[in-house]
Amino acid sequence: MKWIDITLPMEEGRPNWPGDIPFAHHITRQIGKDGSHANVSTIESSVHFGTHLDAPYHFIADGKKIDELDLNVLIGPCQVVEVPSAGVHVDLEALKRTVVPGVKRLLIKTDNSQRIHDREFHKNFVALSPEAARWLIDQGIKLVGIDYFSIGPYGDTKDVHHIILGPNDTVALEGVDLSKVDPGFYYLICLPMKIKDAGGAPVRVLLGAEE
Amino acid sequence: MKWIDITLPMEEGRPNWPGDIPFAHHITRQIGKDGSHANVSTIESSVHFGTHLDAPYHFIADGKKIDELDLNVLIGPCQVVEVPSAGVHVDLEALKRTVVPGVKRLLIKTDNSQRIHDREFHKNFVALSPEAARWLIDQGIKLVGIDYFSIGPYGDTKDVHHIILGPNDTVALEGVDLSKVDPGFYYLICLPMKIKDAGGAPVRVLLGAEE
Repeated sequence: MKWIDITLPMEEGRPNWPGDIPFAHHITRQIGKDGSHANVSTIESSVHFGTHLDAPYHFIADGKKIDELDLNVLIGPCQVVEVPSAGVHVDLEALKRTVVPGVKRLLIKTDNSQRIHDREFHKNFVALSPEAARWLIDQGIKLVGIDYFSIGPYGDTKDVHHIILGPNDTVALEGVDLSKVDPGFYYLICLPMKIKDAGGAPVRVLLGAEE
Repeated sequence: MKWIDITLPMEEGRPNWPGDIPFAHHITRQIGKDGSHANVSTIESSVHFGTHLDAPYHFIADGKKIDELDLNVLIGPCQVVEVPSAGVHVDLEALKRTVVPGVKRLLIKTDNSQRIHDREFHKNFVALSPEAARWLIDQGIKLVGIDYFSIGPYGDTKDVHHIILGPNDTVALEGVDLSKVDPGFYYLICLPMKIKDAGGAPVRVLLGAEE
């Protein structure tokens, strides 16, 4: 298996969700400085920074938390689709033509991928409409990913999150770097940090392709 | 594949390495409070908190950093051995009798596993001796894990880290929870957070077993 890393690096200067704390990485010990033999550092981060996973608890008060998710949803076959947008929404008709029946894990590549490495936060990113979210749930999708920092459009994230994270324990993978990934079928490994009682967590996420 | 999660939960109250900052999890928004629709939180953590991976850069000034590691070392077949200790050291002769030739990824279960969930930090934990570290490198091991927070004994961690993290780009997985794992052969997935330029990172680490 050849592993493609679709995780953004966690580093200062990359955009946080507006209102969240910016990511910070502090050096606390350095080899050769003050007699230290080791390099040590600390981080401060929103649990929704960078490439991260939303657990149902992010928007559902009694929903599953990030440390309670089913690992068999986070690991397994996955489809990556590339679809055009209609304004700030993924084009639902294009999605319908592309998603293969029976897929449980779906990553959606849009025009966002051209801006995912930018240092500024683009509020006009492309996201799911409530209709598209409902259609995905009807298809039996258990994990849906997108190439910007929310599955719902800016200023109107609530409905889409409620539909996706609602009664089915579906999870949302946000901020994946698909800029160098072609549409197709892969093996997904998506592992969140095991932060007790959190609604989300940074993930390390890989796509396995046949060599 | 049945996945066994050998990651400690990241939560306040679990021991940090002495001198490092304690792990903190702050709630910043809560559903229904101050009009919020979402649960949001932030973390503060040493990159060496809990179940974590040491990259060579932790002890080697020009060594590979955590975001530069070879994913093919972090994913693949793995042996878990259970060995007795001699004082604060893993018994090398027992290790020699147990480790199968050709193994690249090795997790060592010791008496530490009985204390890995304790809230206090036990300075007399069991670790590798320099001789055991050298023997593992001679066997061609590329990833070595242990069931407490350092591969080297407390107060004397430098030599063992230099041997393991030195010229071969071997990595050290520290703080794995093997308390419910039997010795044997598994499929390891060990994914660190992609913290740019760090010497280590919290990981999510799973053992796959045949069902």
